[in-house]
Amino acid sequence: MARKDLLDIASLDREEIEHLLEQSAPFKDLFTRSVKKVPALKGKSVLMLFYEASTRTHSSFEVAAKRLSADVTNFDVAHSSITKGESVRETVETLQAMRTDYIIVRHGRSGLPGMIAKQTKASVINAGDGAHAHPTQALLDAFTIKEKFPDPTGKKVLIIGDILHSRVARSTSTILKKLGVDVAYLGPGSLVPKNGPENIRRFTDYKEAMAWSPDFVYLLRVQMERQDVQYFPSVREYHRLYGITDARLADIRDRGLYLMHPGPVNRGVELCDAVMDYERSLINDQVENGIAVRMAVLYWLKPGREG
Amino acid sequence: MARKDLLDIASLDREEIEHLLEQSAPFKDLFTRSVKKVPALKGKSVLMLFYEASTRTHSSFEVAAKRLSADVTNFDVAHSSITKGESVRETVETLQAMRTDYIIVRHGRSGLPGMIAKQTKASVINAGDGAHAHPTQALLDAFTIKEKFPDPTGKKVLIIGDILHSRVARSTSTILKKLGVDVAYLGPGSLVPKNGPENIRRFTDYKEAMAWSPDFVYLLRVQMERQDVQYFPSVREYHRLYGITDARLADIRDRGLYLMHPGPVNRGVELCDAVMDYERSLINDQVENGIAVRMAVLYWLKPGREG
Amino acid sequence: MARKDLLDIASLDREEIEHLLEQSAPFKDLFTRSVKKVPALKGKSVLMLFYEASTRTHSSFEVAAKRLSADVTNFDVAHSSITKGESVRETVETLQAMRTDYIIVRHGRSGLPGMIAKQTKASVINAGDGAHAHPTQALLDAFTIKEKFPDPTGKKVLIIGDILHSRVARSTSTILKKLGVDVAYLGPGSLVPKNGPENIRRFTDYKEAMAWSPDFVYLLRVQMERQDVQYFPSVREYHRLYGITDARLADIRDRGLYLMHPGPVNRGVELCDAVMDYERSLINDQVENGIAVRMAVLYWLKPGREG
Repeated sequence: MARKDLLDIASLDREEIEHLLEQSAPFKDLFTRSVKKVPALKGKSVLMLFYEASTRTHSSFEVAAKRLSADVTNFDVAHSSITKGESVRETVETLQAMRTDYIIVRHGRSGLPGMIAKQTKASVINAGDGAHAHPTQALLDAFTIKEKFPDPTGKKVLIIGDILHSRVARSTSTILKKLGVDVAYLGPGSLVPKNGPENIRRFTDYKEAMAWSPDFVYLLRVQMERQDVQYFPSVREYHRLYGITDARLADIRDRGLYLMHPGPVNRGVELCDAVMDYERSLINDQVENGIAVRMAVLYWLKPGREG
Repeated sequence: MARKDLLDIASLDREEIEHLLEQSAPFKDLFTRSVKKVPALKGKSVLMLFYEASTRTHSSFEVAAKRLSADVTNFDVAHSSITKGESVRETVETLQAMRTDYIIVRHGRSGLPGMIAKQTKASVINAGDGAHAHPTQALLDAFTIKEKFPDPTGKKVLIIGDILHSRVARSTSTILKKLGVDVAYLGPGSLVPKNGPENIRRFTDYKEAMAWSPDFVYLLRVQMERQDVQYFPSVREYHRLYGITDARLADIRDRGLYLMHPGPVNRGVELCDAVMDYERSLINDQVENGIAVRMAVLYWLKPGREG
Repeated sequence: MARKDLLDIASLDREEIEHLLEQSAPFKDLFTRSVKKVPALKGKSVLMLFYEASTRTHSSFEVAAKRLSADVTNFDVAHSSITKGESVRETVETLQAMRTDYIIVRHGRSGLPGMIAKQTKASVINAGDGAHAHPTQALLDAFTIKEKFPDPTGKKVLIIGDILHSRVARSTSTILKKLGVDVAYLGPGSLVPKNGPENIRRFTDYKEAMAWSPDFVYLLRVQMERQDVQYFPSVREYHRLYGITDARLADIRDRGLYLMHPGPVNRGVELCDAVMDYERSLINDQVENGIAVRMAVLYWLKPGREG
């Protein structure tokens, strides 16, 4: 059963998630065999509607859509009349009138992609909305973890950083819980939600968290551009308390743990330079899997315009 | 008889206009039946040369060209050496040397697309030049009106706003006159040209204009970004005098009039919020028809490079 | 024998250069016969990584790649997290993970494309790096000269301007020397390198340089945007001393010399306005040949990802 939109992970059931992850594998397999283009979405149009800049996520979706032979058009919001005061609703009506098949939207406001989805027959994919959700990031994270452990039940993932403001933390921990993975949070008390999802442990001390024996250490990006979040009390101090320092990397290597990060990395903040050469870093796998997962999502969704 | 360029409406004869409007219908019909790509311009190259930003017109042309299977390249003027002092003539010689088939140009200076057309074998399409012309807007407006009245002779269109600085007003009233439609202008005395085209009525008072009994009410966009035009004496006052207020919308609904606007709308200025749900608003039809009309124009023009 | 990367001219041997120039001819021939698209790179992905803006070079590569049926994605560095402190290495690992086949890179730092090439299986093409190299410019210049003299041995090219900071001067004089062409430099003493390549004459006086009897006069672009270079002592004075003034153009016409410039031209600085109509100006030929040469380069390089 296909859906029209992908707005968050919470509304997918486990069967749908498993289906999407299974569908991603042949797409990855194809392009590792240098078959990089399939005609699946030939003649379909994909519109990129990014109110927040994001080179990686934008490129990843764009490449995924082109590999499915779709036509991609950027609705260049930054230079557009939209910022001159046009409402999102009018923009969406315009895209609807252009008979776009897929709208891939990133916006700073939580819930906005859901509002858009109700106003259009096009399939809407949430590419990140405020602190709410980033479902394709969650799917690629889950896919990357399952590449290491095809049955991840009972595996442990420690997510480190500013959990409170992170849509990645929210979506990724939601998908992992649905797949039976154990999740814990580590971060400054002010940045770890007190009333979060059930069954998620909360740590504020790195050593205590490591005593929990995670299999994966997942660093969130510190959003240096945010003025409103205080990274206690300085970025250097943050690195000392919650970053992967050289000493911690040595320990992680000894334990054989996998290391993940949604990118782009702030070096010297979340991760020390030496992580670039860590053999169990999955950061590049995440990028590669992102394209496969997004192809699977585009292929799975069914725009509602037929008939 | 095809032409090389589309620079304005004034130089097209009625037969050519009718031909273009007839050609637009099958293109619209195609993509409403989900056939969104035809090979008509396969291997042809379209270059977008926008000196003024315009998300909607840019996207509309881009989508139209891609649906004809043309290759679209953006000549990114904003970040280019062009703004560093290269003359337009040199830019055009460069595009000519690149053997571009179509150049779609928007520029703040009236007449510039015509200058370009003389310097290149490529087909030049004017996507708006200063206060001069916007011929594809005129074609889509005429197409939209003809969808309601296949023979629009004697129908009445009231164009409201800053007529004086509007290429939309100029091109759209020109095409409508050629099709036998009655046109009238309504706006502040300082913004309605005294020596305009013949046979166009001029109103400065909303009530008097409505007493003329128009079939279509066409609101122009207030160009808020212009510093040099005084919207008498404030935007709020403008709305009260010439905008579609809630009360006026009720009257328009009672009379069964169609409502048009070239987009993007300044809500609360030209139109009150409730217009979004007005059943006889043709604003989204205009967007949709824009793609079909631009496909017809691209298909009709004949670049002069052969031979 | 194909290579993985094109980083500079210096590392190509004469046979490779001749091969590339020969391969460019049929590509040029194709699109002058209106066959503008060939399926040679169908399914391959080209990533544009421009840290410095360049409309012409960017468009030229983009058009070349599309004419070979490759998919082109812009990695929009200006708006990207890269500028927010991500290292180039991380960016390249991301592109590698996306399984890009070709990376076309422009960067202000000399040697950076070479660093990138070592980190990726993708073919890297240097589209200009600092004052180091601009190999496709050199190839198109050589191609343009050979169109006039199929055997250019012993022909004389006078390169005029800021030789010291110019990657064009460096790459183009390197290729011309390899092809047996005589090269001389003319410019202010402070902008002509004292310890440059062997066998290149150096002039500081226009009349003396012309007494050398060149066949081609090649003007470099004055980089007006550079704050650190003093154009002795003003741009107007520069034009008087080293620019092609009306009087010098008359002399050049009398002598039947060819005139070249990599574009975009600063009119009134390197060249007077009248050059636009000079019948032996090859500036537009250079633009046209640029696309053919870049098609040949893309076609020749072999990305290292297979197997």
